Order: sequence, then C-alpha cells, then structure tokens
Amino acid sequence: MVAVGSKCRVCKGPAVIDLPRHNAHFCTEHFVELCRRQVVKAIERFQMLTRDDRVLVAVSGGKDSLAVWDMLVELGYRADGLYVGLGIGEYSATSADYARAFASSRGLHLIEVSLRDEYGYDIPTAAKATKRVPCSACGTSKRHLFDKAALDGGYTVLVTGHNLDDEAAVLFGNTLRWDVGYLARQLPVLPARDGFPKKVKPLIRLTERETAAWCIVRGIDYLVEECPMAAGNKHLEYKASLNEIESRSPGSKASFYLNFLDNMAPLLAGRSAAATEQLGECRSCGAPTTSDLCAFCRIVEKASAHDPVPVELVLGRGRGRR
Amino acid sequence: MVAVGSKCRVCKGPAVIDLPRHNAHFCTEHFVELCRRQVVKAIERFQMLTRDDRVLVAVSGGKDSLAVWDMLVELGYRADGLYVGLGIGEYSATSADYARAFASSRGLHLIEVSLRDEYGYDIPTAAKATKRVPCSACGTSKRHLFDKAALDGGYTVLVTGHNLDDEAAVLFGNTLRWDVGYLARQLPVLPARDGFPKKVKPLIRLTERETAAWCIVRGIDYLVEECPMAAGNKHLEYKASLNEIESRSPGSKASFYLNFLDNMAPLLAGRSAAATEQLGECRSCGAPTTSDLCAFCRIVEKASAHDPVPVELVLGRGRGRR
Repeated sequence: MVAVGSKCRVCKGPAVIDLPRHNAHFCTEHFVELCRRQVVKAIERFQMLTRDDRVLVAVSGGKDSLAVWDMLVELGYRADGLYVGLGIGEYSATSADYARAFASSRGLHLIEVSLRDEYGYDIPTAAKATKRVPCSACGTSKRHLFDKAALDGGYTVLVTGHNLDDEAAVLFGNTLRWDVGYLARQLPVLPARDGFPKKVKPLIRLTERETAAWCIVRGIDYLVEECPMAAGNKHLEYKASLNEIESRSPGSKASFYLNFLDNMAPLLAGRSAAATEQLGECRSCGAPTTSDLCAFCRIVEKASAHDPVPVELVLGRGRGRR
Repeated sequence: MVAVGSKCRVCKGPAVIDLPRHNAHFCTEHFVELCRRQVVKAIERFQMLTRDDRVLVAVSGGKDSLAVWDMLVELGYRADGLYVGLGIGEYSATSADYARAFASSRGLHLIEVSLRDEYGYDIPTAAKATKRVPCSACGTSKRHLFDKAALDGGYTVLVTGHNLDDEAAVLFGNTLRWDVGYLARQLPVLPARDGFPKKVKPLIRLTERETAAWCIVRGIDYLVEECPMAAGNKHLEYKASLNEIESRSPGSKASFYLNFLDNMAPLLAGRSAAATEQLGECRSCGAPTTSDLCAFCRIVEKASAHDPVPVELVLGRGRGRR
C-alpha cells in the first residue's frame, strides 16, 4: 500500500498507507487516528449520534459495516448489530460467518433475520419472481427489515456503513439525471418520521480503501468479494468513473460529495419526494407506504409463492440502481 | 460512420450516419433535417434569436462555429462572422484560412481582429507573461473581444458554437466542485446587461460528432486539429469521462445537460456571481468590470510588454478550465 521508506506525516515513523487525497503517508497509529477523527467529524457535523442513543448497526460482513460497528463501540456508543440473511448462495453463507465471528470476538450482540426462514423467499428468487433487477428487490427488502428491527428493538438510530465511494457514486448517478427528488434526500442523516427510524451514515468521510485498511490494521476479517448479483450494475460503473477522475485529481471524489452537502443540499431542502408524499399504513404489515400494500409486502407476496431459484440462474443480471 | 446496409429511419434509404442516442440511422437529407430541427428547437425554447436580430457569430475555423454560421444563414438569420487571430503559430494561421474560405464561398462578411497587430501580444506570450494557463488568457481575451466587436458593430446578439459536448463538460466540471455560482450562470442564453451583449449557444442540442458530420455532408472544410495549447486540460478530461459514460448508456450526455437546464437551473436562478456583483467601468477601456482595470487590460498590460514567445515554448502546459 505504500513505497518502502515512506514516513508517517505525523510521527515520521515508517508508514503503512499513503492517502493521495491527503497528500500524505501514515503509520498504523496515526492512520487509525485519522479515520477516527473523520468519523467523529461526520457524527458531530451532522448530529448523527449521542451517547444516550441505542444504536443498531446494519452489518453485512463486509469491511464497511464491520469497521463502523468497531469504530462506534470503540468511541463508546452502545451499538448492537443486525444481520439480514439474503440467501445469495455461498456469498450469504460466508458473509454471515464473518458477521458472527466479529460479534463474538468482541462480545457484541448480533440480531439475525433470515429472508428465507422468516419470509419464505431469498433475493435470487425475488429477482426472478418480480422480474426486476436483484439490487432493487434486495434494497427494498433490506430497508424494510432494517427499519422494522430498529423500531421493534427500541433502537433510536439505525447506522449503515455507506462510505464516501458509495455516497459519491449514488450522487453521481442522481446528478447525471438531475433527479432533484433523489438529490434532495441524499443526506447522511434522515430524521425519524412516521414509522421510520432515524438513519445515519458515519463513514461518509472515509473511502472504501480506507475502511478496508482500517479492518486490516485492526485485525478484522471481512468478506472481500462483492455481491455476485451486483456485477455490472450502474452503481459500480459510477464508482469506476469517479475513480478515474480521482486518480487524475486526488481529492475530487471527496470534494464532489462534501461540497454537495455544503453548497447544494441546503438549496434542495424540502424538495424530496418524501417531503411532500402522504403516507398511509400497509394493510398487511402496517409499515408506512404510499400504496395499499407496501413494496416489501408486494415482494413477499410474489417471491414466497415462487419456487426457489438458485443464485447461479440469475447471475450477471444485476443492472439496477440503488 | 455507419454499417453497410443500414437504412435511414425516416425514408429507409441508405444511411450515412448512426446516432446511438436516437437509436437510429439517417441518410444525408434526414440527418441535415434532424440537425436543423435541434437548432430550431434550442432557438425557440430559449428565445435565442428573432429575424430582426443582427447576429454576430464568433468563428474559429473549426467545425462548430462554421456549422452554426451555416445553419443560421440557411435558416434566414442575418449573421456576420468574427474571427480573432490568437497568434498560436501555424494553428492560428490555418484556422484563419478556413474561416476566410467559408465566408468568401458563401459571400458572407467576416470581421477580423488580430491580438498581435491590435493589442501587441498573442496567447503563447500572454500565458508566459501572466504565468497562467493559456486557456485562461485565451478565454479572457476572446470574451472581451467578442463583446467589444458585438457592441461596436451594433449587433444585437453574439452567437458562439458551443455544442452539447462542450456544455456538458463544463457542467461536469462545475458539478464535481458544486460551484453554485458557476452552475447558476451556465445557461444557453445570457441576456444583455451593463455593457455586455446578449449571448446565445444554438448548438447545445448537437454533439461534436454531429456538427462534424454536418460540415462533412454540407461540404464545409474546417480545421480538424484541437488547439495544441489545450492538450491535457481538464475540459478535455471531462469530455473523455462523459464519453465513456455515453458509450455505456447512449443518451446520458444529453440528459445530463438538458435535464440540468430543465430541473436544476430554475432552482439556481439569481445565485450566479453576476447576479449580485457591482460593475464599474475599466479605467483603460471602459468595459464593465468589478476591478479598477478589467481582466483583459491586465493581460494586455503584462503581455504586450513581454518579448514574443513562440508557441512551441509553452506547449503541453494547457491545464486550465474554461
């Protein structure tokens, strides 16, 4: 990750990572300190969390969610984990192992929900049954179960591990279409409202390279593979475009996302679809929805009636947007 | 430009060009018709021109400016041309030949201004003398001389040949920085105000591939080379990024720029720097400026006192932004 002989910007000791956007190298200790400072800065700037909050972290077994859980616990927050079993073949089986191993190594509480066991379907089957891209059924399912688990468990805040690359890529897609409704709600904090918990993203100031390095230096094993069903989706294309821009001009990605929050988001306040829509209750599950039956229950209805579809049958069709 | 055997979408005759973003092929006649329709649409939608206008077209000798001049004359507008000699070695000499040849072949009036003869400098010398990127000195010089020629000549509108690729690339750069002041003024029409003429961009709905094809099918010879001093600048990088996105999703570039005009520009009205700044008169030339001496006169002062610098000495340093 770094040229031999490079020195830490802070202590001049041997560096373990170079961060071109900070135009500097860091040793393990000062890299960890930098990451922690970025997370604290995000939490404070956007009033994400207080010590009184009961925090639920959505955990996938990947680097970002394990890193944010680790950081929050280390910073003194009371944070449990939530793992949703998506039934994406070997990928899901392995990801669950990583989530469980991390929780047990730290003595943390991990809630588990299984789509197949509790709702009678999995993501490959949902993709086939709804004839939509897997990322769409997956996003809807996860959002619903995250919200439900947070509310049912009495948690005051739901944390997700979205990092700077994730948020910049979503912003990039919404900007390419100038979708004002989506742009207006692309904020690192969504307040609680009408049956939705407060949701926050403490990793918005760290790149995925940095969260991966955090896990490595902190000795956290995580699932390295991307979800096989996401291959070729637009989100990954947008990340690639931004990475090219970043490699030519280090810092571009952070300024794209963070300047949006500073300069543009305030001008869009109140323009999200959510700001104006009228919500009723889903007739099946009671969740807030603009329809008679919520999007999650529509998936459950179709997918649970469908014969199980193995993941191999629907691979390479992941072309959705988040 | 097109696979053998392809047929025009309109008449089913042999096609000469494929346009992926329209998902169609066109013969010469219907390609020309499509271009004309796009230009008329831009002119009408943004109230760019009327038949009573006296139009001055800024002409570089490249495809865009010759195409727009050709189209406007063909559509019945009264349009003269303006060529500014920038003194960029062989590149400028050749570009002037193309501009003159086009004007004389159509019996059109071409005004010529020479930076070296009339103001005592050229762009390579200005870049060296001001220690800034050549594109910066060039943009400032051209904008000033375009404005001055339009006002001095009694023209009511200044036309430039900026195409969809140009505008999308500038928008892309301003969006990466979320520079709200620049975003707010990125409009295809700037109304006349305080010593500035009205300025319009009729080619915003045509790509540079389309303006090049227009010139080819209309028999217009133009300078194909890019300006040697622009090599490696950010504007060209942004074009390349957008072209990659476009190749994966045809139509992305047009929707990026045109959706901005429809969805976002109205929200930014009144937020440009120009909307709030107080303009005085330049003490040297009288042009509107926020300083004592306008940016153009500052360049003239420095560059005309400097020994002439041949273009070869400053090549490859063009890293500016428009």
